[in-house]
Amino acid sequence: MRFHERLDRAIDRNDSLLCVGLDPDLARMPSHMGRTADAVAEFSRRIIAATCDLVAAYKPNFAFFGALGPSGWHALRETLAAVPEGIPVIVDAKVGDIGNTAEQYARMFFDLLGAHALTVNPYMGADAVAPFAARTDRGVFVLCLTSNPGAADFETQTVAGVPLFEMVATRVRAWNTAGNLGLVVGATHAAAIRRVRAIGPDLPLLVPGVGAQGGDLATAVTEGKNPQGRGVIINVSRGVLYASTAADYAEAARAAAQELRAAINRCR
Amino acid sequence: MRFHERLDRAIDRNDSLLCVGLDPDLARMPSHMGRTADAVAEFSRRIIAATCDLVAAYKPNFAFFGALGPSGWHALRETLAAVPEGIPVIVDAKVGDIGNTAEQYARMFFDLLGAHALTVNPYMGADAVAPFAARTDRGVFVLCLTSNPGAADFETQTVAGVPLFEMVATRVRAWNTAGNLGLVVGATHAAAIRRVRAIGPDLPLLVPGVGAQGGDLATAVTEGKNPQGRGVIINVSRGVLYASTAADYAEAARAAAQELRAAINRCR
Repeated sequence: MRFHERLDRAIDRNDSLLCVGLDPDLARMPSHMGRTADAVAEFSRRIIAATCDLVAAYKPNFAFFGALGPSGWHALRETLAAVPEGIPVIVDAKVGDIGNTAEQYARMFFDLLGAHALTVNPYMGADAVAPFAARTDRGVFVLCLTSNPGAADFETQTVAGVPLFEMVATRVRAWNTAGNLGLVVGATHAAAIRRVRAIGPDLPLLVPGVGAQGGDLATAVTEGKNPQGRGVIINVSRGVLYASTAADYAEAARAAAQELRAAINRCR
Repeated sequence: MRFHERLDRAIDRNDSLLCVGLDPDLARMPSHMGRTADAVAEFSRRIIAATCDLVAAYKPNFAFFGALGPSGWHALRETLAAVPEGIPVIVDAKVGDIGNTAEQYARMFFDLLGAHALTVNPYMGADAVAPFAARTDRGVFVLCLTSNPGAADFETQTVAGVPLFEMVATRVRAWNTAGNLGLVVGATHAAAIRRVRAIGPDLPLLVPGVGAQGGDLATAVTEGKNPQGRGVIINVSRGVLYASTAADYAEAARAAAQELRAAINRCR
């Protein structure tokens, strides 16, 4: 199944635009759990089991698994295996490199790990995105405007009369010949979401920055959704994963995800 | 020892500005070797043993190890362990993410793997670079102008009257308060190397793109070196690793590295 179709089906089945970011941070995991890769795998599995009827997608962050070494790799595989068939998994690794290296990342994240989609950094241009885009059965979310303060350093600088992130959106629309690309646009920039949506009406938007980073959820949904009430997924990581740091963390994650899904759906 | 000092010492001891890129590609490794992570580790070890008195640094490319799964992680550790004390290792992973994620990458590449330096993507701005720059005992090479055709998509676009890559160089110079930053500038853009050298006289340049990608070695050295004949390292991967694909690959790599070192030194 192609990525966009998989995403739309999950959105419809779970009536949700919520993407849960899986950033299992040893420093923030429940205090009764060990600080091992096995504990990380268990934590992720229980979060997924508690939320998988409430989400449109999961977004494991490679760094949090990679920082555990080879056993983190196993924890990441177990995490992906715990996601029910039909729910897409977007691995967040923000890769970007020349063609022969990008091919290796495609092998790593798509073939070995089985990710349905990947985040990619646009800085190096078309040929750094192409090897991923060529995998037409997978999705590619290209960084456009991120939710961190550093977005002002380059992403919002004016290039040829538009902010750089708009030029990125325009290029990604042009590169989207196989219909499998999307964009990452931070919720901390409401007007920008509207602009990007206008530039690429068919590009799904992955919107981080709600919650811990202070972005406005309602605006992100209102501006990001397409006429079918899809086309945007709202990522929340810490607000779900660490809703409780006690033994009831999975139940608390479920409650947080339910609340977020409802808040998002009120704006669809 | 701080990274820049480690690099300068290796440059002086081996009388070399050559950086050997370790991109062990299963499809290009000698045909008599297995296609396993163990074979990759052996290949890297023998390349290092054959060239370690000829280089200023090694640059293992994370993707080529990551694509082997958890056993690739072990191969990468063995590769780093095979590098003699005193030769700096720059892990090429082109990471770039918000602060709490960047911390995880710093843990992964600096603490677990023991890399002396890391390549970082500037797209997300200051706070995506800061967690690495804060590790003042390690080096950070920020992508500035890359050697691939896609560099024309964004990197050379005009922002505030200068090409984006020059704005990146200017920012990196300002962020370099601890003296541990550097820049990646492709050899395929000779005039650009001169500009970047002028913008950041104290920033060491990592120059890929000589060899397989067609950049001019002499110009890269002439424009990139500082008054002490250091300040730039020229990366060659495929031209050394695959100088022979027969059983004599290590000897052939040594001969290629000797030739490259001599060609570089004629321009210092």
